[in-house]
Amino acid sequence: MAPQLDGFFAQVDSLSDHFIDRLRKAVAIPSVSADPARRPDVVRMGHFLKDELEALGASVELRQLGKQPDIPSLDLPPAILARYGSDKNKRTILVYGHYDVQPAEKSDGWATEPFDLTVGEDGRMFGRGSTDDKGPVLGWLNAIEAHQKAGIDFPVNLLMCFEGMEEYGSEGLDDLIEAEGKRFFADADAVCISDNYWLGTEKPCLTYGLRGCNYYSVEISGPGADLHSGVFGGTAQEPMTDLVRVLATLVDTDGKIQIPGIAEQVAPVTEDEATLYDGISFEMETLHESLGSKTTIFEDKKSTLMARWRYPSLSIHGVEGAFSAPGAKTVIPAKVIGKFSIRTVPNMEIEKTNELVYKYVKEQFAKLGSKNTLKVYAQHTGKWWVASPKHWNFAAAAKATERVWGVQPDFTREGGSIPVTLTFEQATGKNVLLLPMGSSTDGAHSINEKLDKKNYIEGIKLLGSYLHYVAEEPMSE
Amino acid sequence: MAPQLDGFFAQVDSLSDHFIDRLRKAVAIPSVSADPARRPDVVRMGHFLKDELEALGASVELRQLGKQPDIPSLDLPPAILARYGSDKNKRTILVYGHYDVQPAEKSDGWATEPFDLTVGEDGRMFGRGSTDDKGPVLGWLNAIEAHQKAGIDFPVNLLMCFEGMEEYGSEGLDDLIEAEGKRFFADADAVCISDNYWLGTEKPCLTYGLRGCNYYSVEISGPGADLHSGVFGGTAQEPMTDLVRVLATLVDTDGKIQIPGIAEQVAPVTEDEATLYDGISFEMETLHESLGSKTTIFEDKKSTLMARWRYPSLSIHGVEGAFSAPGAKTVIPAKVIGKFSIRTVPNMEIEKTNELVYKYVKEQFAKLGSKNTLKVYAQHTGKWWVASPKHWNFAAAAKATERVWGVQPDFTREGGSIPVTLTFEQATGKNVLLLPMGSSTDGAHSINEKLDKKNYIEGIKLLGSYLHYVAEEPMSE
Repeated sequence: MAPQLDGFFAQVDSLSDHFIDRLRKAVAIPSVSADPARRPDVVRMGHFLKDELEALGASVELRQLGKQPDIPSLDLPPAILARYGSDKNKRTILVYGHYDVQPAEKSDGWATEPFDLTVGEDGRMFGRGSTDDKGPVLGWLNAIEAHQKAGIDFPVNLLMCFEGMEEYGSEGLDDLIEAEGKRFFADADAVCISDNYWLGTEKPCLTYGLRGCNYYSVEISGPGADLHSGVFGGTAQEPMTDLVRVLATLVDTDGKIQIPGIAEQVAPVTEDEATLYDGISFEMETLHESLGSKTTIFEDKKSTLMARWRYPSLSIHGVEGAFSAPGAKTVIPAKVIGKFSIRTVPNMEIEKTNELVYKYVKEQFAKLGSKNTLKVYAQHTGKWWVASPKHWNFAAAAKATERVWGVQPDFTREGGSIPVTLTFEQATGKNVLLLPMGSSTDGAHSINEKLDKKNYIEGIKLLGSYLHYVAEEPMSE
Repeated sequence: MAPQLDGFFAQVDSLSDHFIDRLRKAVAIPSVSADPARRPDVVRMGHFLKDELEALGASVELRQLGKQPDIPSLDLPPAILARYGSDKNKRTILVYGHYDVQPAEKSDGWATEPFDLTVGEDGRMFGRGSTDDKGPVLGWLNAIEAHQKAGIDFPVNLLMCFEGMEEYGSEGLDDLIEAEGKRFFADADAVCISDNYWLGTEKPCLTYGLRGCNYYSVEISGPGADLHSGVFGGTAQEPMTDLVRVLATLVDTDGKIQIPGIAEQVAPVTEDEATLYDGISFEMETLHESLGSKTTIFEDKKSTLMARWRYPSLSIHGVEGAFSAPGAKTVIPAKVIGKFSIRTVPNMEIEKTNELVYKYVKEQFAKLGSKNTLKVYAQHTGKWWVASPKHWNFAAAAKATERVWGVQPDFTREGGSIPVTLTFEQATGKNVLLLPMGSSTDGAHSINEKLDKKNYIEGIKLLGSYLHYVAEEPMSE
């Protein structure tokens, strides 16, 4: 029997101004985790959430995570662990979100003040953190409040984990999640994360897979200090010359990784999977628009989605230690560090991939016959994640989506990484669902970040009704 | 007949503390031309020189050069045009130097306060500008003063041109020199520039050649804005991938330029020239020491000196627009600009070299079959310079060197560029001599810049006696 949701939906609609006002208050706190000077604002944002949650009757704990590794004098902002309801007869859902935001300055090119939520006549709500991730985080609080005001019993016990360092490496969070997997999170039946986006702008989706990311440094050094190219040019072997020659061997213009053994690790496409892509709402035109050019590798949707979701890719990000400013400087850099990363997919193994990369890079460097010194190492690695989209957790979210948006969601994967997803899966042993609120054009890390009012309000309904459907799903997978 | 110089030399020795004090006053003015906030100090340094010169009886003009092109609100520091003596029966020598300095902060790693001349017990005088170029500039003033105090007639008319923007592109100077070539500089019989260094630390040299420098940008762009490598990796052609592949084709690890047609422009080594290198005081060990490693291309002196002085070289300096900070950032840069330069030698022509570079880079990019967009252009170009070391200007300097230092100087070229050299040659039509005061270990642009007290005091004698020998040389070449 479908849950009775009309009262909840009506209540959300009637509280919409109040919910937008709550988002406005949250956006007004510039909780930029990357800026040490803003740390008090991040902490203030954590307290804002704690106060709001306690006002709704949740029990809340601010968990201190210690010092920031790269700035040992700086306290990390607290993680918020909260519980709403503890009825043994209800299922328990663990939700995650983050209350910190990317840096933003009006002078970066924002059309509006980034920390002043500005609602346009078209319903677009501009503000840093509106969609990433304050809107979704408040979505859970708003769903609770609408139930209370409508006098509707909340369908599940809700465990909440909100962090304040997501935009700066989620420092301290993994340890917390692992430690609490069998404690605070022990009775979670499933996990839901609302911190990603629709594939396009029209059709909602549920996300069941992410690529991993191994990030590498190739360091080549020779001279004891930077040299003048007039004095030393032609007499010294230059690390930058060696570096571009090594980097040039990694990948071709069409994205084909040249490192032997990588492709062999990739799971073959099954027939089942091959048919999956056809129905997905995705237009090459939209991709060209978000890319800002037509410089795509593939011309068709299916190849493009497969390349983004289920094949590895290699990107060269830049060079540390070389001249990088505008203008001209005739320096021979003494030590240069090329940075590249490989997005990984099933069934690539981190260790094996690292070994293939190290071996190949060393071989390419050896071919140069250089007297310079090479180091190659992984800066960080992160595994890919793929969940079962047939789990009751996804089934509930799919029904809720159809109820709220009137359309069956696409089942999607993402090319990027949300490492916490895997951490929650491993720590709880439960299914994890990614349930996005915003759409592809929200510009999460860009200037003029926004969340459409419709996505916010309907998103609150979606999160709430997901919990109702979760309560009704048969437990078997 | 050799000039009578003993009285002059004795006077220089007895005034040495006074001359060091003059250098201390000059170093104390932080005339950093690259820092707009220091511009008043640069101007103050110009006025200091004007006052000192006028006290010595020179006529001095501060010539305004207009606004700084990249900061149109900022006045350029004045060029100093000065004359000491106007005896029609004497030769007239034009000397050039600069009174601005490189940036310096104690926190960069200086052992002493950079703007506080610190004389060690070993006679090393540490301070920003000590050797580059305040010591040599004051050398001319000190030589005048020593003549006056010794009651010795000054052997030539001295024209002086001292600028305050040498460390920031000599903005405005070329126009001035060209305009004054047949006016203020009209009666110059030869030009002498003291703004370079001995090849080593023991043996003085006269410098008769410099390489030119053509500086290129290779710009590759595609997407409208920087992209997230998770979302777009594998689906978009990446400008950085194309750039490293193009840069990798320019030069090999042993410095061999891969661009067809460059080597063909290089003047062949004559028998005369081949013998020149054997006698030059230069040790590979010293080179390894200044390089801070043994990563040289050649193992022997002759190949190394030829590679530095008379063969072109190509250095890749860096990439603008890519990720260049420490750490990890998973960006796909939308537009990247690779920077490289070619040091040019006789008989390379600027235009022809540019065309060869453009053609080759475009061909290499075309091979990639990329949809991205390439631009290749020269940021700046500068011709090589080679003077006749058999000119009387050099003969006089060689005799002065032997008199002061007791050794015949090496005749050297330099791998770097001093563009003003060529400008003076072209504007005056006269022979230009580079007559260095400091030695190879002075660290002109580094921390702990120094000038040895011996090089300063004997250098004053050298500059003064050079003028005496100049007065006696037969005019023919």
